Amino acid sequence: LSRELAERALGGSRLALSRLLTLVENGTAEGRAALDWLYPHTGRAHRIGVTGAPGTGKSSLVNQMAHYFRLPRPDRQPLRVGVIAVDPSSPFSGGAILGDRVRMRELAGDPGVFIRSMASRGSLGGLAATTSGLVQVFDAAGFDLVMIETVGAGQAEVDIARLAHTTLVVEAPGLGDDIQAIKAGILEIADILVINKADRPGVENTERALQNMLQLAHPGPRTFLHHGRLEQVEAPPAPTSAGIWIPPVLRTVATESAGIEELGEAILRHRRHLEAAGEWDARERARLQAELEIMVRETLFGRWEAQLANGRLAAALDDLAGRRISPWQAVTQLTEGGVL
Amino acid sequence: LSRELAERALGGSRLALSRLLTLVENGTAEGRAALDWLYPHTGRAHRIGVTGAPGTGKSSLVNQMAHYFRLPRPDRQPLRVGVIAVDPSSPFSGGAILGDRVRMRELAGDPGVFIRSMASRGSLGGLAATTSGLVQVFDAAGFDLVMIETVGAGQAEVDIARLAHTTLVVEAPGLGDDIQAIKAGILEIADILVINKADRPGVENTERALQNMLQLAHPGPRTFLHHGRLEQVEAPPAPTSAGIWIPPVLRTVATESAGIEELGEAILRHRRHLEAAGEWDARERARLQAELEIMVRETLFGRWEAQLANGRLAAALDDLAGRRISPWQAVTQLTEGGVL
Repeated sequence: LSRELAERALGGSRLALSRLLTLVENGTAEGRAALDWLYPHTGRAHRIGVTGAPGTGKSSLVNQMAHYFRLPRPDRQPLRVGVIAVDPSSPFSGGAILGDRVRMRELAGDPGVFIRSMASRGSLGGLAATTSGLVQVFDAAGFDLVMIETVGAGQAEVDIARLAHTTLVVEAPGLGDDIQAIKAGILEIADILVINKADRPGVENTERALQNMLQLAHPGPRTFLHHGRLEQVEAPPAPTSAGIWIPPVLRTVATESAGIEELGEAILRHRRHLEAAGEWDARERARLQAELEIMVRETLFGRWEAQLANGRLAAALDDLAGRRISPWQAVTQLTEGGVL
Repeated sequence: LSRELAERALGGSRLALSRLLTLVENGTAEGRAALDWLYPHTGRAHRIGVTGAPGTGKSSLVNQMAHYFRLPRPDRQPLRVGVIAVDPSSPFSGGAILGDRVRMRELAGDPGVFIRSMASRGSLGGLAATTSGLVQVFDAAGFDLVMIETVGAGQAEVDIARLAHTTLVVEAPGLGDDIQAIKAGILEIADILVINKADRPGVENTERALQNMLQLAHPGPRTFLHHGRLEQVEAPPAPTSAGIWIPPVLRTVATESAGIEELGEAILRHRRHLEAAGEWDARERARLQAELEIMVRETLFGRWEAQLANGRLAAALDDLAGRRISPWQAVTQLTEGGVL
């Protein structure tokens, strides 16, 4: 069954693709078998992570980018675009972001676009592994670009960003003070910084703060903030000439389609940079290792759970609750013997 | 050494407490030994998770709550308060949230308050385990309340919330559309909803939306939104009378200390509810199980890594990159044999 579905998805069937994505998202044996079979067909798609704090308008931006990549251009054919929207774990989230989903339906008639909304479930490791499986399906089915949109910001985003070749971090003016902390943590993973809603007041402050933090993250001769004034110390190097990529800071207003072309082209330029600098393969390998380790973790834990004698966990919890043993002592007890 | 530190921390030494927290945060063997020794002294502290989207002013709110619990009241002594602030993984985060840290320093002279800022590191499982270790230290050292503040929203917050007896979800008016998705995912874990910055425009909309979503999450006779109008279908049950807790929605303006007393008392009322309803022990047990499973996962993975023959992982990555085997096939190879 799964082999047949996989063949039909490779042949361009949207129905087969949709069913396959469901099998993979649900972690079924058929899904795993299909992934094994599809895997040799993967490795061409450009994985683009889109992350950032709530309220920055990521979904609208993803929607606009999908539109943009569908346009024929003098130098290329329209690109096929897959979108995976990872939502917080909730039965309600489908309804909550209805507005954006409705807008996305404008794309629904286009066979070159496929949007998949995914409720985040189970452990984070599990989520990253599942997302990776979905990306593999899109990749094998011939989608040129796969955008992975994550809501929120933090460790989850960092982990999912590791799946991407190109990571966009989206900001917006006026989202408050402690967004600074997010920026700081997330700047290190950003390949492209987007200030969406750039028609709002305060956009200059946001841009200055981002440039300033970029200067910390990527020291070297470039514009930075000195005693409150923006100073150009030396001409910044062209992004790719020296073999290093300096994350550009781009302004967009997704609801008015402003700045989308520049952003789309920056994404494609980043791919060319990665390939020219030999980083495409390096990122691929780092990603494979991260994924493998997550899967090993889940596999070992699953085997441990399966072999645990009935009642042993409950007895350990009793001892813990009674403060007769400590958590580490319980772990030692529960994993000794025949267990790895 | 660690036994001595632990004894001195129990005796009230702030220096010993600080050193112990560092040993535990760094995952050292001394830290583990200290936790084993301290564990019988734990189990009294009230663990309070404070989470929500960026820009909601969580840090200021935590600061105000710490102040509040330090006040002597007719019915109780001042409470000892520990605070653990979990920041996104970054070397810069310390500077980024400086404003709040400075405000928190007002509390620094008070021996009944101890604030620990923690950079989130490594895997999320690792983060939750480390945070739990820090809470145990505070608990054993006699802190009555331990507040755990997390930046961001999503799976990370859900995992860390599981550490808490009482989870506060903080919102603020006017943070944009896709915050709805966060709310939906996180409402299920909220014991108390706080609308901070409640002097901002739009506070009524935020409150109505929260009440409406609460209605979905906790069906039953109460206020809900019907065709755009707020209607009272039946008198809502008093929060604790029926043995069920309906999350209250409270308004605060932390920067002006408004609404803090009501919030502080709601937190203490929630503890009394948990104890009266027998849920205190149930939550404790659920938490212990979640923590144990995270620690087992990390332990098994650590043993797997330690026993893996040199070059085996690299060879598997070569095969994966060359599409000769699939990820699941690699996992099967790498975990077969002497391995669990």
